[in-house]
Amino acid sequence: MTQDFPEMYRVLSAIHRVDPKFIAEAQGRLGSLTKPIGSLGRLEAIAAQMFSIFSGVIPAPLRRAVYVFAADHGITAEGVSAYPSEVTAQMVQNFLHGGAAINVLARLHDADLTVVDVGVKADFDDSPGLCRMKVRPGSRNMRREPAMTREEMCAALNVGIRLAQAAAKRGENLVAVGEMGIGNTTPASAITSLLVQQPVAEVTGRGAGLDTDGRNRKLNVIRRSIKLHFGLESNPEPLEILRCVGGLEIAAMTGFFLSAAACRIAVVCDGFISTVAAAVAQALCPQVCDYLFAGHCSEEPGHRFLLRKLGLTPILSLGMRLGEGTGAVLAMPLIESSIRLMTEMATFSTAGVSGVTR
Amino acid sequence: MTQDFPEMYRVLSAIHRVDPKFIAEAQGRLGSLTKPIGSLGRLEAIAAQMFSIFSGVIPAPLRRAVYVFAADHGITAEGVSAYPSEVTAQMVQNFLHGGAAINVLARLHDADLTVVDVGVKADFDDSPGLCRMKVRPGSRNMRREPAMTREEMCAALNVGIRLAQAAAKRGENLVAVGEMGIGNTTPASAITSLLVQQPVAEVTGRGAGLDTDGRNRKLNVIRRSIKLHFGLESNPEPLEILRCVGGLEIAAMTGFFLSAAACRIAVVCDGFISTVAAAVAQALCPQVCDYLFAGHCSEEPGHRFLLRKLGLTPILSLGMRLGEGTGAVLAMPLIESSIRLMTEMATFSTAGVSGVTR
Repeated sequence: MTQDFPEMYRVLSAIHRVDPKFIAEAQGRLGSLTKPIGSLGRLEAIAAQMFSIFSGVIPAPLRRAVYVFAADHGITAEGVSAYPSEVTAQMVQNFLHGGAAINVLARLHDADLTVVDVGVKADFDDSPGLCRMKVRPGSRNMRREPAMTREEMCAALNVGIRLAQAAAKRGENLVAVGEMGIGNTTPASAITSLLVQQPVAEVTGRGAGLDTDGRNRKLNVIRRSIKLHFGLESNPEPLEILRCVGGLEIAAMTGFFLSAAACRIAVVCDGFISTVAAAVAQALCPQVCDYLFAGHCSEEPGHRFLLRKLGLTPILSLGMRLGEGTGAVLAMPLIESSIRLMTEMATFSTAGVSGVTR
Repeated sequence: MTQDFPEMYRVLSAIHRVDPKFIAEAQGRLGSLTKPIGSLGRLEAIAAQMFSIFSGVIPAPLRRAVYVFAADHGITAEGVSAYPSEVTAQMVQNFLHGGAAINVLARLHDADLTVVDVGVKADFDDSPGLCRMKVRPGSRNMRREPAMTREEMCAALNVGIRLAQAAAKRGENLVAVGEMGIGNTTPASAITSLLVQQPVAEVTGRGAGLDTDGRNRKLNVIRRSIKLHFGLESNPEPLEILRCVGGLEIAAMTGFFLSAAACRIAVVCDGFISTVAAAVAQALCPQVCDYLFAGHCSEEPGHRFLLRKLGLTPILSLGMRLGEGTGAVLAMPLIESSIRLMTEMATFSTAGVSGVTR
């Protein structure tokens, strides 16, 4: 499947499971701290996972970053979004001027923000914080033809692969993956339906604000696109799913997740679209999950199915459905809290605190 | 009920509902921001509540603090805790040396930590960050007599009242309320059973780690204590509940919640014990809830009942059951995020972003 794509082959070969001995070591440490056993709840599992990702040497301080992959979608021609597709480019400008939700959260929570134009239907001038890596101005209309050619998909995957490698080289070690792309819940729902083998209606929501007619139109478009490309094929290859009913930012995020795992850095999924890319990455290489955190649980109905498939428990559950990496960045202070607790708390013996009676 | 307690009378008279016009104003502002309507989920409700607490002028930056109220419990003589009661004093020392979970989180999330000895069965030297306001060294054994006399309860309530007033005077405006007290899930469960009118077994858990025998003993102790003080009385007065089956730190926290609301500052409940105090405060003055946030949902079974009674949706749900204010401090970055988003994001018109089609 990846014979003709050497960059991907190298990345997949470089992803290794974390060593379970580090999980056990972290659990031992957590059990010795001045608190009832297990009383930090999910934070203990998060700390142990971080400990295993960094093979027992957690970098301090963590260097946080967030990458927002932006692209347009040919499928918007079918009327599947509440917003006009020009909004993708307008929101990229908003990111560059610092006015979007992710700007506010990245500033507050000390995460470096990079906006990646991997396929927006507009041209941008050079700007700090913008990576101009456009593969083409918007994916193709998947209702009529595959969303990407093989070459376009590989180029988009490569954008993510290279960016994660550069992130790791810069010393970033806790990175969030977000996106902006008007219309992208449509390909995301199509991919989800195929990956988790659930009916389209189960995994498709109202996106950024469709009414009932709009959602019905979206359901039809997704069903027909799947039928066009896969007919009755029950289990298509993940990269064929991505190519035919995916999108440029989804492909780039897939490459990013895989490459981050190969570089052994911790990577946080955001909402539905970002998690779709993580699920494609998992389908290509199940070990990638050792390096993944689910920042939050989105209101989009498909998100829960994906999280279950990935085996990830979301850190936050705030009813958000915004994308841009917002839910992932909001989870970062909690991830950081978990490891600070593990590394900075006193133990029963050092603090002279009595243990359980009996 | 409070005629003979002028400090309490003054506090209760000073608590006013927030003006709903500020909620509406915040919602209008949130709807104009560059994001799909409602897509920030619960963060939008949190931002609107903060806006209303501060009557439309949210202080920036927020000044965060956490108060940990510590006391011992006479009821530990009945074998209701997995840990010996000396651990309360040992943990206070741990707080003062910076080694407990709340120290780590308060440092990381920039909250000033104050430890309040309102009833620990040990004496402490003066120490920075310690308020020595002991009412008596531990509450009485509620299985034999009321946990506090009327005078002791009023003194403990007053500790909290005065500390919240001092906090507001210092400019603290986002304060968390936590506790430490070996044995305190026993009085907390007794109070919960009476306030939410649920059987003792429904609202009583394993505390810091009881086995099944221990929990059965605890259930019996609670049932007998309730019977001793209230017989078949179906709806005892909240201050009588607090006095007979409460504790010194629970009373102090009750005073703190009421006084914080009277001073119009935002106050975050932590876990089961802290929320019990908030529920007593609500029973005395329902308007207090306008100023309250629930930091998280604890694993202790009684906590959910209390949150429902208070009408609070917890911000986090991480399976924690540690107390000390840990869950409340962990929620602070999310509360701060909500108001930064509301105040710093661009609007559709200022950013030149198109709105919904149709």
